Amino acid sequence: MDGKESELGLTVKRDENFSEWYTQLVTKAELADYGPVQGTMAIMPYSYAIWEKIQAGFDAMIKSAGHQNAYFPLFIPESFFLKESEHLRGFAPELFWITKEGDRELGERIAVRPTSETIIYHFLAKWIRSWRDLPMLLNQWCNVTRAEIKATKLFIRTSEFLWQEGHTAHASKDEAEREVMLILGFYREIAEKYLAIPVLFGRKSESEKFAGAVYTTTIEAMMPDGKALQLGTSHYLGENFSKHFGVSFLDKEGKTQNVHTTSWGISTRMIGALIMANSDDKGLIMPPMVAPIQVVIVPIFYSEEDKAGVMKVAEELKAGLEKKRISVRLDSRPERSPGYKFNYWELKGVPIRIEIGPRDLKEGTLVIARRDTGEKAKVKREEAIKAAGKLIKSIQKSIFKKNIKTLKEKTFTAKTYDELKAYVGRGFVRANWCGSGDCELKIKEETTATNRVIPFDGRKKGKCVVCGKETETVAYFAKAY
Amino acid sequence: MDGKESELGLTVKRDENFSEWYTQLVTKAELADYGPVQGTMAIMPYSYAIWEKIQAGFDAMIKSAGHQNAYFPLFIPESFFLKESEHLRGFAPELFWITKEGDRELGERIAVRPTSETIIYHFLAKWIRSWRDLPMLLNQWCNVTRAEIKATKLFIRTSEFLWQEGHTAHASKDEAEREVMLILGFYREIAEKYLAIPVLFGRKSESEKFAGAVYTTTIEAMMPDGKALQLGTSHYLGENFSKHFGVSFLDKEGKTQNVHTTSWGISTRMIGALIMANSDDKGLIMPPMVAPIQVVIVPIFYSEEDKAGVMKVAEELKAGLEKKRISVRLDSRPERSPGYKFNYWELKGVPIRIEIGPRDLKEGTLVIARRDTGEKAKVKREEAIKAAGKLIKSIQKSIFKKNIKTLKEKTFTAKTYDELKAYVGRGFVRANWCGSGDCELKIKEETTATNRVIPFDGRKKGKCVVCGKETETVAYFAKAY
Repeated sequence: MDGKESELGLTVKRDENFSEWYTQLVTKAELADYGPVQGTMAIMPYSYAIWEKIQAGFDAMIKSAGHQNAYFPLFIPESFFLKESEHLRGFAPELFWITKEGDRELGERIAVRPTSETIIYHFLAKWIRSWRDLPMLLNQWCNVTRAEIKATKLFIRTSEFLWQEGHTAHASKDEAEREVMLILGFYREIAEKYLAIPVLFGRKSESEKFAGAVYTTTIEAMMPDGKALQLGTSHYLGENFSKHFGVSFLDKEGKTQNVHTTSWGISTRMIGALIMANSDDKGLIMPPMVAPIQVVIVPIFYSEEDKAGVMKVAEELKAGLEKKRISVRLDSRPERSPGYKFNYWELKGVPIRIEIGPRDLKEGTLVIARRDTGEKAKVKREEAIKAAGKLIKSIQKSIFKKNIKTLKEKTFTAKTYDELKAYVGRGFVRANWCGSGDCELKIKEETTATNRVIPFDGRKKGKCVVCGKETETVAYFAKAY
Repeated sequence: MDGKESELGLTVKRDENFSEWYTQLVTKAELADYGPVQGTMAIMPYSYAIWEKIQAGFDAMIKSAGHQNAYFPLFIPESFFLKESEHLRGFAPELFWITKEGDRELGERIAVRPTSETIIYHFLAKWIRSWRDLPMLLNQWCNVTRAEIKATKLFIRTSEFLWQEGHTAHASKDEAEREVMLILGFYREIAEKYLAIPVLFGRKSESEKFAGAVYTTTIEAMMPDGKALQLGTSHYLGENFSKHFGVSFLDKEGKTQNVHTTSWGISTRMIGALIMANSDDKGLIMPPMVAPIQVVIVPIFYSEEDKAGVMKVAEELKAGLEKKRISVRLDSRPERSPGYKFNYWELKGVPIRIEIGPRDLKEGTLVIARRDTGEKAKVKREEAIKAAGKLIKSIQKSIFKKNIKTLKEKTFTAKTYDELKAYVGRGFVRANWCGSGDCELKIKEETTATNRVIPFDGRKKGKCVVCGKETETVAYFAKAY
């Protein structure tokens, strides 16, 4: 992973060729690499560490709300997919099929899980017997596979990805629907507070919902190239699955009832969003909340004598920052110049760089540089730890603020179909929509924009931009990943 | 998961039918369940929480030693297995083969990973270029699949399991060998300090080593039924894989060299060992270090008036224990009797039970019961938290001590082949062995015992129990899972 200095720089500007810039950034910053089987990828340590931060954050949220982790088999018998026909239709083209183990031909084909509703309901049917077992609030962190025929986009469109999938069973519709919303709130918190990416949230339309769901809720983000990215979905499945898989319970009156279920997931796609939304022509700009390294210390010296003094201060500073639970790296690689290190850590997006040179030694100072704005400030040595702590909070806020501004700039309101067509490609287009699949389809076919989300709080009287029918429904349309 | 009272009890005694007792315990204590595809299993929340404790412990160890987590593809092209012939021979019978995605026949078959050496070296060949990139210390937490034709044994023998697999690349043999030993030490710590299971450690014989390794080191535990269980292995792979996959580096003199690699893994099999080793006819006996719940509080009351008082004390106690980072459950289920709750939490092996009844309320006391010894003691209410904290430490030690005693009792020394045959089935049989594969094979064929481990520190002059040749090598033989 050790590159030459010249290899660090991105040779494409973000606003000139977003797609090529993204791929260069992902590979040069050592975030991911292409796998040998088409569509697969390796998640490299630096981005896996981001995933670990997302995991830790979300895991704590769901556990505090009473959820438990478990693990269900990767392998699903073909017959399971035949039980819920909508679900099958949705996933059939994407299934990987195992037909042999060792030399032996299998009797029934085995699917590698694309999502785990069917296999989990198989178990829930055995595990749930009475109202005492409810709610059952399960989650698993795992890999799933979905065959991708389109070109691979690292983190965004791959045949295998990591995710969490939550699956819950409830005695009533109300409770299940509250669960759907609780989780959507958690997802929003991960996106906005951790990744610093503001999101729209609401329902998916009928044609965009999860295969087998009664309805799907979603959080949707806007990327710098004007394309939307779905970051997480939380589904109310009603009795659709419990009916087919026989997941029922005896209620307090001794009556048998189907459970109401939900499922929800966020994936390593979050890392793709993070990269796209938080970066510039020099590389990543990590929000401190998910930064594997929050502060990098670069010692600068030109003589052995200076080295001893500089390194002593650097080591002390490192220990002091760690004591405050700030994750810090002291880059003492002797074979690299300070200039190389500056570029290297800028590419990796470390939020704060602290430089310590011979002059600082004499003056009792340090230089603190922000990755997001590029600002540099001289700080007294004894104030450095406090300053870094404050800066971490303010950088997080400042990146989020900037992204809110971008989202606003990239959100347009269309009153007519022509306006909608003109805005598509530039961001979200908010428009009145009658709610019909036909009007939605027309937009999709003529502009390639899809209906991303029907916001919970966005009802407004107006005319459907396609058919002109009076409606209160508002939806956001956009090209999407 | 809500059982009737009568369903909680184990109907088989451990020492009468160990295998049936194990299966009953695993299912009744809601640790795991059989999957629909033969050989697969679901890991239920209570045992998954044990896995999370093991993960957290080991993850912290390797990270403190400079390792980083990453994630590599589940799918491996068939051609990769053809590069290292020993590796292929070892794994070929266990591979699951994907031949189709959606409706499309694949050109080259894809294997679902049984272990990730081949796919990881594919990436290392690209990522490692110079001595500056070394050592590369990677680990991944993931699922692997290996077709099992033998009968499924939950946690112990399944077609899919969860594990961590570490893969490291080094500039020198020495450094790689130190890594192998470092990890073996961590594994020993997990087994002994976390699971409270003492282990033998040393090398595997040539015939028992990992397919493709130069040598394999192992930790081996003894189960109550006299069978050995391999808990973790750490392999020195030399240049075997790096050569075939072209993982080389430019050393400081500018010369191209192959890297020396290691790989190592522990799996959810650890949970199987934990269950077998730490339990009795009433159920599990969890060592506090890996117990998902360390203390359960059972409130006892017969009137509404008592209830209010008892619950108040119980809630306060819960908060106090949590403040001390003790994981605690207050079992306030109104529909369950205290007797049911005692049985339930004994089955689940919670180390400490605290009972609070109306009399305790008056006397300002509590009853603290130990799961491991069954001892009960009356304690003053204000001393309960401190007492629980102390007890957690002493239970952990006491379980380990008991298991050391068991290991000693189940370790025999054989001076002759007849003695060896007589001891096989009762535990480990320590014996001089000339080192030849023939003698090892004879023991295996005639007694079904395998060579489990050649201890690092066990050299002793004597005669091979099979052929009578003079040797200093000592090995441990046993029937094994």
